[in-house]
Amino acid sequence: MAGETSQLSPIGVFDSGVGGLTVVAALRRRLPDEPILYLGDTARLPYGIKTAETVRRYTRRNVDFLVGRRVRAVVVACNTASAVALDGLDVGLPLWGVVEPGARRAADLSHGRVGIIGTASTILSDAYPRALRRLRPGLEIVSQACPLFVPLVEEGWHEDEITEAIARRYLEPLLERQIDTLVLGCTHYPLLKPLIQRLVGEEVRLVDSAESVAETVASALGGAAGRRGSTPPEHHFCVTDGPERFGALARRILGEAEVSLELVEMT
Amino acid sequence: MAGETSQLSPIGVFDSGVGGLTVVAALRRRLPDEPILYLGDTARLPYGIKTAETVRRYTRRNVDFLVGRRVRAVVVACNTASAVALDGLDVGLPLWGVVEPGARRAADLSHGRVGIIGTASTILSDAYPRALRRLRPGLEIVSQACPLFVPLVEEGWHEDEITEAIARRYLEPLLERQIDTLVLGCTHYPLLKPLIQRLVGEEVRLVDSAESVAETVASALGGAAGRRGSTPPEHHFCVTDGPERFGALARRILGEAEVSLELVEMT
Repeated sequence: MAGETSQLSPIGVFDSGVGGLTVVAALRRRLPDEPILYLGDTARLPYGIKTAETVRRYTRRNVDFLVGRRVRAVVVACNTASAVALDGLDVGLPLWGVVEPGARRAADLSHGRVGIIGTASTILSDAYPRALRRLRPGLEIVSQACPLFVPLVEEGWHEDEITEAIARRYLEPLLERQIDTLVLGCTHYPLLKPLIQRLVGEEVRLVDSAESVAETVASALGGAAGRRGSTPPEHHFCVTDGPERFGALARRILGEAEVSLELVEMT
Repeated sequence: MAGETSQLSPIGVFDSGVGGLTVVAALRRRLPDEPILYLGDTARLPYGIKTAETVRRYTRRNVDFLVGRRVRAVVVACNTASAVALDGLDVGLPLWGVVEPGARRAADLSHGRVGIIGTASTILSDAYPRALRRLRPGLEIVSQACPLFVPLVEEGWHEDEITEAIARRYLEPLLERQIDTLVLGCTHYPLLKPLIQRLVGEEVRLVDSAESVAETVASALGGAAGRRGSTPPEHHFCVTDGPERFGALARRILGEAEVSLELVEMT
């Protein structure tokens, strides 16, 4: 099913939109010689407000697309897709979601009380608590959906008194339960990290699942690292809508003058 | 193309999600004997953050679906779709968007200064200002995208100090220009009407495009009204994702104990 792939083939990264670029940035720091093929399903985002059935259907099509483009491994950077669509998904290639690595990191760090924040669908799926309970059965876990965080980040209000008031409301129930570790269960949330850290206090550890999955992928593929060369690897970005807007954000997040963009149609 | 339709055929109403239910409610008040076939494209919402090309593609498929189900007329309840996807769209049936009726109502009411609020895509399309300038060339027009209003309504924070602070920020530039009429250019916004009216002041007239389009449809079809009977007409609701959640909202907005629901797939 995976066709002919080699160590020269890119790592495939899929997200519903631009959020997965934080995973790309983290992967590039750890595996600077690996080319990446990215797919952002911008025509159908956001996934976090859709049912599990629909997110599963979209995820399978998107992963098939990457496999069809001969990637050597797939990283599902979207928390919602990782939470609801990966059970039983076998594409004959290494495949990672962000939930398992994020949960493992939180289980390692916590003294006993873990908070999870994410989209409505991620929280409803209970995927993080299930993963955490498998790893450390005694953990106390409290979850909170934060549906306004993604639109606030998209609006560009990262450091803003309104965003702070909303974050305070969402985080209050977690603070009452005295969490010591907080999982940022959505790729958009690391952009709110300074504000969230200020509200929960310096002693609460924040787990960025983009960083965690990059670490997992790097240790799995690192030994069998791909091409080595003096020229940097070529990354390629496919989106289902709005390549111009995506390109502007990708250049900013990745700090590159040019990125290779392609508009694709997905049914 | 429209197949066999008759005066017994339903009126087709399409929206990206639940917002168009306000149009259904307004239509039912004016045409209580007309059956309605509704299509909510909940698997791909929101449209207001997508490019015009993608919204055009989705709209054509959705309108084709309604035509294939033998509706006698089509109402595009979604402001974004009305703003960017109706030019040159001919399905051989009467077809109305919400922009033209909303603009006409605002042109009738205004003393000279009109404000428009809507999604990012609706505002970017400039469709309301263009329609207004055709109707009354001398009007002063000021537009403002309010991307957080839809998620705030979805979160259920209709009357809330945070929503008020956000609305204040969005509406300030309109108030500085001393608008006398404000078009609520998104089907979600009527749910924020009391809050918006309070902020802009009682002397500013609010135009609800759901009401305006219902009036237009009623006067076009009213003379040739459909079936008359002692039993109420049967309405039917198709959605592309999450029929349970949609059904709960539809029952609440329409005040009915049961609604006829169907999950459909759209590519």
